[in-house]
Amino acid sequence: MRRREHVIGVVRDVYERYGFEPLETPAFENIETLLGKYGEEGNKLIFKILKRGEHEASGEADLALRYDLTVPLARVIAQYQNELPKLWKRYQIQPVWRADRPARGRFREFYQCDVDSIGSQSPTVEAEILSSVCDVLVQLGFEGFTVRLNHRMVLSGLLNAAGVPAAQHNEALVALDKLDKIGVDGVRQEFVARGISQQAAEKCLASFHVEATEPPDDTLLRLRHTLDEKDDAVANLAAIVSLAEQTNVAGRIRVDLSLARGLSYYTGAIMEIAVPDLAGSLGGGGRYDNLVGMFLGRDVPACGFSLGLERIIVVMTERGMFPAAVSGGAVDVMVTLWNEDARADAMALARDLRHSGLRVDIYPDADKLGKQFKYASSRNVPFVAIVGDDERAQGTVSVKDLRNGDQQTVKRGEAAQHLRARRS
Amino acid sequence: MRRREHVIGVVRDVYERYGFEPLETPAFENIETLLGKYGEEGNKLIFKILKRGEHEASGEADLALRYDLTVPLARVIAQYQNELPKLWKRYQIQPVWRADRPARGRFREFYQCDVDSIGSQSPTVEAEILSSVCDVLVQLGFEGFTVRLNHRMVLSGLLNAAGVPAAQHNEALVALDKLDKIGVDGVRQEFVARGISQQAAEKCLASFHVEATEPPDDTLLRLRHTLDEKDDAVANLAAIVSLAEQTNVAGRIRVDLSLARGLSYYTGAIMEIAVPDLAGSLGGGGRYDNLVGMFLGRDVPACGFSLGLERIIVVMTERGMFPAAVSGGAVDVMVTLWNEDARADAMALARDLRHSGLRVDIYPDADKLGKQFKYASSRNVPFVAIVGDDERAQGTVSVKDLRNGDQQTVKRGEAAQHLRARRS
Repeated sequence: MRRREHVIGVVRDVYERYGFEPLETPAFENIETLLGKYGEEGNKLIFKILKRGEHEASGEADLALRYDLTVPLARVIAQYQNELPKLWKRYQIQPVWRADRPARGRFREFYQCDVDSIGSQSPTVEAEILSSVCDVLVQLGFEGFTVRLNHRMVLSGLLNAAGVPAAQHNEALVALDKLDKIGVDGVRQEFVARGISQQAAEKCLASFHVEATEPPDDTLLRLRHTLDEKDDAVANLAAIVSLAEQTNVAGRIRVDLSLARGLSYYTGAIMEIAVPDLAGSLGGGGRYDNLVGMFLGRDVPACGFSLGLERIIVVMTERGMFPAAVSGGAVDVMVTLWNEDARADAMALARDLRHSGLRVDIYPDADKLGKQFKYASSRNVPFVAIVGDDERAQGTVSVKDLRNGDQQTVKRGEAAQHLRARRS
Repeated sequence: MRRREHVIGVVRDVYERYGFEPLETPAFENIETLLGKYGEEGNKLIFKILKRGEHEASGEADLALRYDLTVPLARVIAQYQNELPKLWKRYQIQPVWRADRPARGRFREFYQCDVDSIGSQSPTVEAEILSSVCDVLVQLGFEGFTVRLNHRMVLSGLLNAAGVPAAQHNEALVALDKLDKIGVDGVRQEFVARGISQQAAEKCLASFHVEATEPPDDTLLRLRHTLDEKDDAVANLAAIVSLAEQTNVAGRIRVDLSLARGLSYYTGAIMEIAVPDLAGSLGGGGRYDNLVGMFLGRDVPACGFSLGLERIIVVMTERGMFPAAVSGGAVDVMVTLWNEDARADAMALARDLRHSGLRVDIYPDADKLGKQFKYASSRNVPFVAIVGDDERAQGTVSVKDLRNGDQQTVKRGEAAQHLRARRS
């Protein structure tokens, strides 16, 4: 939980600097808002809330717990369309609930972390979102990650150019999406198994494959040859790339033509973050100009990105990326209790140490000191402060480092500084 | 929401300095955990979740949404009793759900903010909790508030001394609890209406009333006369007062013998925060040494305090106590878009301003400048930055203060500093 708070704190800080506003929506929506939005399987995984009062006995549900953050966003846009700004930029970090069977790394309640810009088709929108996501990752300590960028319409164009009939586009994309996992040969077999002609399959493989080291401009140049010199989608990608190059996204973009992303609601640019030596991504998103129309009745341009919060926490934990203050114990120093008479003194010392910003615990009872030390050790508290009779008489504090047994006596007024310097 | 984040940030910061650990529990508990814990009326107000899958059609519920933070805490203690430390200090800030009819200031989903120490009967526990709560309020900007302190056993002792039979104690306490609202005469009538003899009623009124300005030590001295010189509860109150005097609670405590607090599960000290010119309290709590036993089968000493988060936000808003950065707009400066060619330049300027910590928006389209200014104004953005052809040629930025129309041209590299200085 402390780790999650750390990550959320960084995300908030960065997104607010980009002018995204925090949004929270209630845990439950009207059940009709959610049903039918996630397919038949999704309907089953939605937690449904019984009607209250006299209607409880009916066994019917009228509310349902949030299943993702996108549908509540669309509902808010539809409901407040006249009050929202022309370009509404919001982020939302809240739990969602899915009635999956709990398993390792899969919970019925988990956090999603979405950022979306609503109302503009400008490529500035994609560039800003990518830039903010990269700022988050850099600030969390990630290095060497890549932004995979592609475009839904480029995918269609390449499939057309390869001779895949429109009716088979979705089949082809499902196969293509596995390129990272199963390699060129695997995808070739998938293509054939899904009824795509061998000739079209080879053309696809040739045009979709991009060397990991190819600069985006070279990929875009190649695209202009394969498709039309003036293809809108390629121009849009080029605009996004050139804007993103002005930010800390510079040098991280790879136009990866094999990126398909499963969700069918994307209409323009699609993007994903890849980290070396990590299967899967830390997050992904894209432009979805038609989705809000499902609720509103008219289309509203939109682009969003979802960071994989739980995934990020797992990776940062495995790789030891959390600062000591986050991954270490909750308390910097425990003030021991010498005897009953020293109670008020211990309280006053704790007050001063806390005032300096240290996290301080007080042992509640005048037990034997050894027992108090042992308790602090068991709680991973690195330091104990002792104010015995001698220390009280001399206006000092003894500070013991429980990690190495080192004990020093310092002036009462300097105890906070002493501890802060040795905390690390 | 920005306001809530501000308050929660302060609460977190303070509680962590006191060695309280953050706890989050899932939104739903098994339904049996909640049913029967809040009385018959409470049972009706609990949101119940339908069974999933093949059992959905049964219309039965097996889960229920969190109704408060105390019962989930007791459940966690019972479940993890062997893994928790001897003195477990936790805070929890999460929404709870109640199926009340929504009304002004009453929501079906609202935040509770609890801090509890589990496992010790030491008066240090009460003093630490009071001190942390006062630190929170001081840091939020509250002044002149009072800590009302009383003790459940002192209440019983005084009622006994006044000749109220044990069977009528609860009736008497309900009446007494209204002293603040209905005054001495009102409570006298209530006492009589509730069947308490006139003689006992007068004795009660005499012993429970405490002048607002009476120092705690005087009240305690008086208590020692009325009750036993060595009364445990009075000694406990005196110990809490003397420990709390070592902290910033000093000078704020009023031993208020009329404080009863509704909840019947308190067993020792009870406390509440009163603010001048405000009916009701900003929070309250007390010791409840028997409650955890309801779940665990054996009693565990515990003491807690619940801050009225939503109340605090309302009062701070009404009294203009939020810092400008919290109550003001979400964005410090909007970078305008001069023309299509200036897009990358606008992006780069936004990058630098954001890097300096400013909250920056970029206008997405190359509309007329007047339209862009108007949009920024409507969004309460105080500054716009303009990089037109002249500015680009000279390496400058024009910064316009939309609040007074003042416009200045500064060197590109000094724009961030210029804006930060004028933001306030």
